[in-house]
Amino acid sequence: MRKIKIIGHGVYLPENKIMFGDQTRYRVKEGVTQIDMAYEASQKALASAGIAIDDIDLIIHSGAVPAQLIPATATLLHERMAKGKSIPAFDVNSSCTSFITALDIASLYIEAGQYKTILIVGCDIASAGLNENQKESYELFSDAAAAVIVTKSDSEKQGVEASLQRTFSDGAHATEIRAGGTLHPGYIYKPEDRAEYLFDMQGKQALLTTARYLPSVFDEFFKKYDLTMDDVDLIIPHQASKALSMFMSRMKIPEGKYADRVSEYGNMVGASVPFMLSTLLSEGKIKEGDRVLLCGTAAGLTVNMLLLSL
Amino acid sequence: MRKIKIIGHGVYLPENKIMFGDQTRYRVKEGVTQIDMAYEASQKALASAGIAIDDIDLIIHSGAVPAQLIPATATLLHERMAKGKSIPAFDVNSSCTSFITALDIASLYIEAGQYKTILIVGCDIASAGLNENQKESYELFSDAAAAVIVTKSDSEKQGVEASLQRTFSDGAHATEIRAGGTLHPGYIYKPEDRAEYLFDMQGKQALLTTARYLPSVFDEFFKKYDLTMDDVDLIIPHQASKALSMFMSRMKIPEGKYADRVSEYGNMVGASVPFMLSTLLSEGKIKEGDRVLLCGTAAGLTVNMLLLSL
Repeated sequence: MRKIKIIGHGVYLPENKIMFGDQTRYRVKEGVTQIDMAYEASQKALASAGIAIDDIDLIIHSGAVPAQLIPATATLLHERMAKGKSIPAFDVNSSCTSFITALDIASLYIEAGQYKTILIVGCDIASAGLNENQKESYELFSDAAAAVIVTKSDSEKQGVEASLQRTFSDGAHATEIRAGGTLHPGYIYKPEDRAEYLFDMQGKQALLTTARYLPSVFDEFFKKYDLTMDDVDLIIPHQASKALSMFMSRMKIPEGKYADRVSEYGNMVGASVPFMLSTLLSEGKIKEGDRVLLCGTAAGLTVNMLLLSL
Repeated sequence: MRKIKIIGHGVYLPENKIMFGDQTRYRVKEGVTQIDMAYEASQKALASAGIAIDDIDLIIHSGAVPAQLIPATATLLHERMAKGKSIPAFDVNSSCTSFITALDIASLYIEAGQYKTILIVGCDIASAGLNENQKESYELFSDAAAAVIVTKSDSEKQGVEASLQRTFSDGAHATEIRAGGTLHPGYIYKPEDRAEYLFDMQGKQALLTTARYLPSVFDEFFKKYDLTMDDVDLIIPHQASKALSMFMSRMKIPEGKYADRVSEYGNMVGASVPFMLSTLLSEGKIKEGDRVLLCGTAAGLTVNMLLLSL
């Protein structure tokens, strides 16, 4: 057990709500940036913890797409909320499950005594990269930010009990934005390449790689740590798509054992897992003492799992 | 002491050598990608360790600019060298000092027993983003990759002794690539904005923020860990610019106590620190038992320091 506890959390959900059939999605208004969103969520997290920015000794931004190519997004958030302070800031990226990786790293830092109180912000502005001609992905994603503050716990029963990450790169091109990095720099843009700068989801391939690998990583996780589903109070999966319930059902995980709010919120990319964690805490659906399993699949394909005792 | 040791390392240096006065710089040939470079360095590191990819249980890519916006660069490297394996892969970004942050994280993972053997690749292809109209930065940077493999050490005298990272965001815009992320997405490209997609260095501001913060973080580091310069055999700084010797001299660090190869190699962005570490090991200038101080300033402005006992 790496003894940490959540002392604050908060989310930012854009006002702009759009419906695709019975599916609700959120999109930022023109002019609202990734840094604005990350800042708002972070301020709420600080307020809910009853602490000030001076009490934070590390800022981690966890998300898929940066605000700028240089510097790290965490430093731009730092500029907004911590200018004049010397709080270290860096980015962690395992795409949609970046928060799980970042929380794993944060628990190691806290356990080692290197940092005391860490702000982790999961923030992605999906609508900055959606392709209106690809209905399946265009109607799936929402913009959001979520921030979680963790610190050392004195309880032996509180913290990160177990974590496992696996990457299967035969899924590397199932979900991607091919241009914008060094492989296809932005300044060689041609109008006919526009789609290369937008999110591209090969839905069927994404589902097949998830079907192929998600159950095996679940099995590995439970075996490795000698756990059963009875040890988990609630599974908080990345809200990847409407297929979530199908995957859970295939793995014989009953409804009610996992959070499925895809119709209500959509896929929030790197904000998805911390958004759901914060929302369920705010709603009182999970509480101190509960053991929650954060998990999900991410572009890569990465499967990430982390058992957190609240 | 977080007990780790380097068991393999390797670099990739492009064949294409160009001179700016007495300064040598390296640039990749057309068609050579960031993934090619990262792969070549990683293969050399595996060969020097005498191990195979199956012996690696985590891949961390540490650099400033990704190969694609989605997925993480580490997963694209995974696709090249570990396809069919389930080795986890993610990115860590603190810009030019990403390797130091990644090594810090790797040491925590190894100390916790979460992973046994970790491949950290520092790779940036600066020439993909240089502005030929900004002589000062255009003539400073080189493309390179460097890979380091670390594993658990049984010696109490080998590993990460101390680390400190600080971020001062009043330097957030001294060195940046403003476009390409969510703040200015690639698909809104206009030819008159071309420079926004290229690296922009406010040289004077970068020097001033470095002058302002680097010495204070050095002081904090040595005080916090009760160390003196006598505890360090060699300082391996990020080869940021020709001003390196001036900063070292101001901090009263004598020549010979630090590696200054700027004229020979230039600033390799995220590859700079591991490239120098690997090069000095290959040259026999540092060896087992030595205590080396990895350090540097990065866009952000981040100052990073890590004392490693080899």
